[in-house]
Amino acid sequence: MIEETSKIPQATSKRLPLYYRFLQNFASANKKRISSGELSEAMKIDAATIRRDFSHFGALGRKGYGYDVQYLLRFFREALDQDKETDVALIGVGSLGSAFVKYNFHKNHNTRIVMAFDPAATIEGVEKSGIPIYHPSQITQKMEEEGIEVAILTVPASEAQKITDELVEMGIKGILNFTPVRLTAPESVRIHTIDLSVELQALIYFIKNDLKNSQIE
Amino acid sequence: MIEETSKIPQATSKRLPLYYRFLQNFASANKKRISSGELSEAMKIDAATIRRDFSHFGALGRKGYGYDVQYLLRFFREALDQDKETDVALIGVGSLGSAFVKYNFHKNHNTRIVMAFDPAATIEGVEKSGIPIYHPSQITQKMEEEGIEVAILTVPASEAQKITDELVEMGIKGILNFTPVRLTAPESVRIHTIDLSVELQALIYFIKNDLKNSQIE
Repeated sequence: MIEETSKIPQATSKRLPLYYRFLQNFASANKKRISSGELSEAMKIDAATIRRDFSHFGALGRKGYGYDVQYLLRFFREALDQDKETDVALIGVGSLGSAFVKYNFHKNHNTRIVMAFDPAATIEGVEKSGIPIYHPSQITQKMEEEGIEVAILTVPASEAQKITDELVEMGIKGILNFTPVRLTAPESVRIHTIDLSVELQALIYFIKNDLKNSQIE
Repeated sequence: MIEETSKIPQATSKRLPLYYRFLQNFASANKKRISSGELSEAMKIDAATIRRDFSHFGALGRKGYGYDVQYLLRFFREALDQDKETDVALIGVGSLGSAFVKYNFHKNHNTRIVMAFDPAATIEGVEKSGIPIYHPSQITQKMEEEGIEVAILTVPASEAQKITDELVEMGIKGILNFTPVRLTAPESVRIHTIDLSVELQALIYFIKNDLKNSQIE
């Protein structure tokens, strides 16, 4: 019996894409069953956490038998909606934005940057690594035309809230925020913030305080 | 009484750099006292979490009175070792690495990329945005010379483990890993992984499953 995915704890949910990627690797290697120990070794997540996570997926491992790789793959594919591609807009093509344009999540077949916006672009738009870049004055029109609901925000801090307001107005559902600004948006808009300075400072803090080591997402 | 910082929960520790940044802003605005509500509003973290975190810092807020800004600033400065600069090496100056070189954490006075490595660099080294870039064959020598113990890893996935082994050999203490590889290293080396594809997939998963909204680090 598969539990409702909405009941899965948030920390577990954040690991789903990672589990999916590793399960795919094991499936490609024709592995039928996998133990929590093998996954732990490959993913650097402790085996107890994996077993607890998997119990939420309705996957019951048996001692000396392990988990069914195909069952888990099906579960993750469905949970992550892997059969449907999600189109994403990139706002801000500075140095970090350019890295995203070039990279464009080519390892994932289900997420893709399909357009970008930058003040350096002309009104007619330019192209970079196959992605059209438009002037920010066209955000609402272009995103609505394509029905895009997710944006990656890599603009200067001074622009972040203003553009967020515009995205909210236009009906955005989620923002991956790389600016250091704590954005204000309605409850219905999901915002994940990745502040690279904070990440580096946190790493240094942990090193200096010698906390228990583990790989952290 | 200030609790030993090593007893502070990990989730709380990860928020320290963020608290520090916001407290600095309030101090610059000549604010003497601050309530958990005001901080909550500014930081988009719920007030109960802030109060729980602050109880670990020995900061006791009083109703209608709030927290002492200077006390908290002193606590964070000490906990984060803000008076000491940490020099960091950047390994891999591709598109993401170039963004780091250009950005170089200029908002933080206490962390700084002081050297970078890339196969495109000559043996004599080149310079980019004021940062010397050396050939990877010089990683051990250059980092040892400068006593660098923290590295940001932005190399192709195929190189990640090999370079990690070299860094471990040379005595690295922490790695901020931007490759999708789950690195193998001794327990004593702290590794934080930020996988941008996984972050984007997790955001999309949360949107599609309509989980309770909150800003997530």
